[in-house]
Amino acid sequence: MSVVVRNEHRPHRATAEALVQYGVATIHEAQGRSGLLAAGIRPIYPGASVGGTAVTVSVPPADNWMIHVAVEHCQDGDVLVVAPTSPSDAGYFGDLLATSVRAHGVRGLVIDAGCRDIAELTRMGFPVWSRCVSATGTVKETLGDVNVPVVCAGQLVEPGDIVVADDDGVVVVPQGRAEKVLEATLARAEKEAETRERYQRGELGLDLNDMRGRLAQKGLRYVDEAPTD
Amino acid sequence: MSVVVRNEHRPHRATAEALVQYGVATIHEAQGRSGLLAAGIRPIYPGASVGGTAVTVSVPPADNWMIHVAVEHCQDGDVLVVAPTSPSDAGYFGDLLATSVRAHGVRGLVIDAGCRDIAELTRMGFPVWSRCVSATGTVKETLGDVNVPVVCAGQLVEPGDIVVADDDGVVVVPQGRAEKVLEATLARAEKEAETRERYQRGELGLDLNDMRGRLAQKGLRYVDEAPTD
Amino acid sequence: MSVVVRNEHRPHRATAEALVQYGVATIHEAQGRSGLLAAGIRPIYPGASVGGTAVTVSVPPADNWMIHVAVEHCQDGDVLVVAPTSPSDAGYFGDLLATSVRAHGVRGLVIDAGCRDIAELTRMGFPVWSRCVSATGTVKETLGDVNVPVVCAGQLVEPGDIVVADDDGVVVVPQGRAEKVLEATLARAEKEAETRERYQRGELGLDLNDMRGRLAQKGLRYVDEAPTD
Amino acid sequence: MSVVVRNEHRPHRATAEALVQYGVATIHEAQGRSGLLAAGIRPIYPGASVGGTAVTVSVPPADNWMIHVAVEHCQDGDVLVVAPTSPSDAGYFGDLLATSVRAHGVRGLVIDAGCRDIAELTRMGFPVWSRCVSATGTVKETLGDVNVPVVCAGQLVEPGDIVVADDDGVVVVPQGRAEKVLEATLARAEKEAETRERYQRGELGLDLNDMRGRLAQKGLRYVDEAPTD
Amino acid sequence: MSVVVRNEHRPHRATAEALVQYGVATIHEAQGRSGLLAAGIRPIYPGASVGGTAVTVSVPPADNWMIHVAVEHCQDGDVLVVAPTSPSDAGYFGDLLATSVRAHGVRGLVIDAGCRDIAELTRMGFPVWSRCVSATGTVKETLGDVNVPVVCAGQLVEPGDIVVADDDGVVVVPQGRAEKVLEATLARAEKEAETRERYQRGELGLDLNDMRGRLAQKGLRYVDEAPTD
Amino acid sequence: MSVVVRNEHRPHRATAEALVQYGVATIHEAQGRSGLLAAGIRPIYPGASVGGTAVTVSVPPADNWMIHVAVEHCQDGDVLVVAPTSPSDAGYFGDLLATSVRAHGVRGLVIDAGCRDIAELTRMGFPVWSRCVSATGTVKETLGDVNVPVVCAGQLVEPGDIVVADDDGVVVVPQGRAEKVLEATLARAEKEAETRERYQRGELGLDLNDMRGRLAQKGLRYVDEAPTD
Repeated sequence: MSVVVRNEHRPHRATAEALVQYGVATIHEAQGRSGLLAAGIRPIYPGASVGGTAVTVSVPPADNWMIHVAVEHCQDGDVLVVAPTSPSDAGYFGDLLATSVRAHGVRGLVIDAGCRDIAELTRMGFPVWSRCVSATGTVKETLGDVNVPVVCAGQLVEPGDIVVADDDGVVVVPQGRAEKVLEATLARAEKEAETRERYQRGELGLDLNDMRGRLAQKGLRYVDEAPTD
Repeated sequence: MSVVVRNEHRPHRATAEALVQYGVATIHEAQGRSGLLAAGIRPIYPGASVGGTAVTVSVPPADNWMIHVAVEHCQDGDVLVVAPTSPSDAGYFGDLLATSVRAHGVRGLVIDAGCRDIAELTRMGFPVWSRCVSATGTVKETLGDVNVPVVCAGQLVEPGDIVVADDDGVVVVPQGRAEKVLEATLARAEKEAETRERYQRGELGLDLNDMRGRLAQKGLRYVDEAPTD
Repeated sequence: MSVVVRNEHRPHRATAEALVQYGVATIHEAQGRSGLLAAGIRPIYPGASVGGTAVTVSVPPADNWMIHVAVEHCQDGDVLVVAPTSPSDAGYFGDLLATSVRAHGVRGLVIDAGCRDIAELTRMGFPVWSRCVSATGTVKETLGDVNVPVVCAGQLVEPGDIVVADDDGVVVVPQGRAEKVLEATLARAEKEAETRERYQRGELGLDLNDMRGRLAQKGLRYVDEAPTD
Repeated sequence: MSVVVRNEHRPHRATAEALVQYGVATIHEAQGRSGLLAAGIRPIYPGASVGGTAVTVSVPPADNWMIHVAVEHCQDGDVLVVAPTSPSDAGYFGDLLATSVRAHGVRGLVIDAGCRDIAELTRMGFPVWSRCVSATGTVKETLGDVNVPVVCAGQLVEPGDIVVADDDGVVVVPQGRAEKVLEATLARAEKEAETRERYQRGELGLDLNDMRGRLAQKGLRYVDEAPTD
Repeated sequence: MSVVVRNEHRPHRATAEALVQYGVATIHEAQGRSGLLAAGIRPIYPGASVGGTAVTVSVPPADNWMIHVAVEHCQDGDVLVVAPTSPSDAGYFGDLLATSVRAHGVRGLVIDAGCRDIAELTRMGFPVWSRCVSATGTVKETLGDVNVPVVCAGQLVEPGDIVVADDDGVVVVPQGRAEKVLEATLARAEKEAETRERYQRGELGLDLNDMRGRLAQKGLRYVDEAPTD
Repeated sequence: MSVVVRNEHRPHRATAEALVQYGVATIHEAQGRSGLLAAGIRPIYPGASVGGTAVTVSVPPADNWMIHVAVEHCQDGDVLVVAPTSPSDAGYFGDLLATSVRAHGVRGLVIDAGCRDIAELTRMGFPVWSRCVSATGTVKETLGDVNVPVVCAGQLVEPGDIVVADDDGVVVVPQGRAEKVLEATLARAEKEAETRERYQRGELGLDLNDMRGRLAQKGLRYVDEAPTD
């Protein structure tokens, strides 16, 4: 059975936009080191970043029909999250589809498969995080689902979840945790700013975090010459 | 037996130059989804594109002697296509060889092996599509062939075939199909331009391609809440 | 037993700085094709290059504590070389640590593991060569060693060795060979400059290196049509 | 926050045991082609198969402490499903842990990480499906969770779900679908038995499934010689 | 355009059967080191070997319809060679199809994609060489070709070519070279038998092949202690 | 400069033979988790194990000449350790070389490259640990070294070091640590035997190692239902 779940609600769009400036690495830490997609998902060009609300698409291998179906269920501020039901490196998405989804408010794409028209997508400034680049096309023969929970690159993503992506990769923040994670991210970013300043002055992490005692207790020794066995 | 086949004929150079502006993905589609090299062959710097006629080189693993042999059989508008007879990640090609082949008219290199001197090749604007970057050198000990049919990254390439490469990868167009593929590419590009415009206005692929009936017939359902099993 | 070896001596800093302009590929050749790290170690942004003296850090999987320990043993002109004792793709290093090590004179990082904060490191211009990009963090629970010999991406690196890295990868020059390698590099670079000029004029490698006789002797034949079997 | 969810209930143990004889491929088809773990998860020795109820364990990279915690929450007929929170190839599990979990009724292990003591586990006949073999050990420093939903090799697994594994890989059947999937599996197996018999007699799939008309309609042609382009 | 080329002729079946006993490695050498499929193609169980005449099948990604089409064009002594037009890890082939093709004389399968029902295929003794094992199924939606030239795992295979496969991999012998390669294989095998006997008696390759002079001339030195740099 | 270092001394042969029965995983732990080769090095058939003294061979890519040179420097109880100077998947070693090295006392081979003649090596019972299986041959054109320190699959191996290999992989024990490591291995094996017995009786690791307090202190909670966020 294939379904499209209409999902008009985007309660966390503002939070997504607030989060993006702090970056994937910081949000991932602030969220207790969860929600990070597999490291194989990389941006198609450097320097892009996006934060938005997930419209999820479950697609068959080498078949992008359901992305076309998903377009009319997108809103301003969305990020498409596309997961094949079995591994596929096909090029599901190119500049035509990017033109279409952008016209419906989509800010970017995260796909655990291939992408094509890299040069044109770069010119358009439409950011994509994909597993590979491939000019291989797809067919439109088999159904899938829109706005159901999907596992994308090792992470469960539910429709409406917050997705943030940058040069470090992609992190998903479950809707129920949106506010808590934003708060923790702000706190962490503030602490990082202070640490950065102290590091710039030459202070050591060992001293800032008072680690010398614990290191000694674990048995670290300082010597003037490498020990011979 | 190792041979160099002298091949003076380049009947498809103009077609190659006409094709390159339409891009690898479009040509691949126009050609009936054939001729695409394996997706692991990537450009050494972003934004490059090239279209030309193939001079093929079959090389032993970690031995680039035959590339030197090939140089004097190159003409203006050629693209070198180099395939090792068994897998090799060695750096067969660098800025010196690039200087040499460019002086003989070569526009770019496609190699199912490694490349080096990336910074210098980028400065020169000499485009290379390779399987990896590696500073590892090669020897000059064992013969191979020039201008024989080779399998490069999973595709059969014959000398004189058209090779087009860009950020999406590399596609080969057999000589006998050059005119037909150019025609199909132009037709496809025109259709894509029209589609792009309609997508920009917000029209949906579902409507442009009249897919709603077929989707319903295959069993797609629209619901307001995700079904529980 | 975990140790930090204090190592104040940097006799080869000037040599490292002299070498970097000739590039990894040339140095690797000049050194008799040894010392190259595995090709999987790639720069996080294109165009960077660095030459310096190695401070080595042996770290447990997914634990970056010892990098913090290493900072106070760094000097101006150093390159950190970090090798996990078992494979790890975790993001050991980001912009905060970069700020800290730069304040202590470190010019760049080579790590056989993951790196994060790519956008910020790019803005800072702090070059990193890593096996992958990953936002995954690390813990600070288990000791390792600083300034002991390590195997990093397949190469033995000793503290104080010269490390040169650019778009082609990373090469290590053992301290005892520093002067000899610099000399050989200069000689090679000079010869390459001459070769480049002759290639630019269209001369062939076959003639420059007088290879025609040896090719004929090995059995190379020139034909006008491809042989049929 | 780290939790162990006590979960005494195993309503689907009998179904798991009934399913295993039909094999992963058939169950996966019967379930509508869902629930298959990534193909990289392979048995450590050929010929093993297991069906049981999942006890899930979420573990930090290179840290197997939580597997020890999970043991006392296992029952006869369970299969351990272990997923690291970030990728790790460490050897989390060997013959000692196998002895311990077997004493508590566990029938096998599925782990998206490494396993060791392969020779001894083979002798014991304790089946493991893992991503790799690695003698690398793990530490016991950081907490995780037991009996929470995990994503293991790309599939969501909830505690109590049915897990079936054999030479083809691993499939998970959500608890709520257990009976329906068993029914569909039996039906499919029956149909496969009949097909097998007809195939043995030389009947063709084309005729059994009445495909000739559809093939012709899609444009398939039978020729006596390969077309030249 | 999709075609099935009827091909009744199998002039090289006896040669294929004669070759198999000498093994892939020896045949590959005897053929001048050509024709070897990529090393990623591995047998699904150890100890199998097969030699036969190729029926080639070009298939779309994740679609095995054309294998069903191919069955009625198989004869006793054939080996199926299946190549997807773009990379696919799907499980195209299992015990049902094996039953069907065996009933039509097929001796084994070589496929640059996935295979399933490993346990049952092992029990049947039906040998398969595949790129991976995957329980993922395929659809029957898109056409391909039967008995056209295909590139399979990097090698061009034409219908009727000889295919030999064993634990070392898969080698293809073009029809036109069948007799010459058999002859060269017999000669090589004879020479290997003699070498084996002399090696067993302790004779050295250096002496058998009179290599000491050439080694000395290239600069090999024998020393009693490792040189320090 | 290429050298063969004559090395008649094998002080640690008996220790190597004593160690092998305890297995790679236990030795690796006893040695403080060092010396393990990369996990990609796998046995060519299951169930093999070997312990011996290293004769090291540094070889060029796709060139096995130096293995022939090494044979006459082998003694009873040796294990050949072969490391290419740059990555190569070629099949450096087959049944002929195995016959030769066995006649000179060699017990097995560890090679960070390819191996061939798998079926015959299995019949001979000559164990090989390699990175891949490949029928691709090698040339005899370029020199390397025998009995110099090499980095093999990420580990430094010196001639005379102890090498132990089994289904779990390969571990190297430096000569200077031979006795200490044997002692630690015996102690560890004894402790493991006791632990195994207690695990068999159903005792928990948590109790054996008194972990409950530390778990509670780190914040582990036991609950009856999964927490909702």
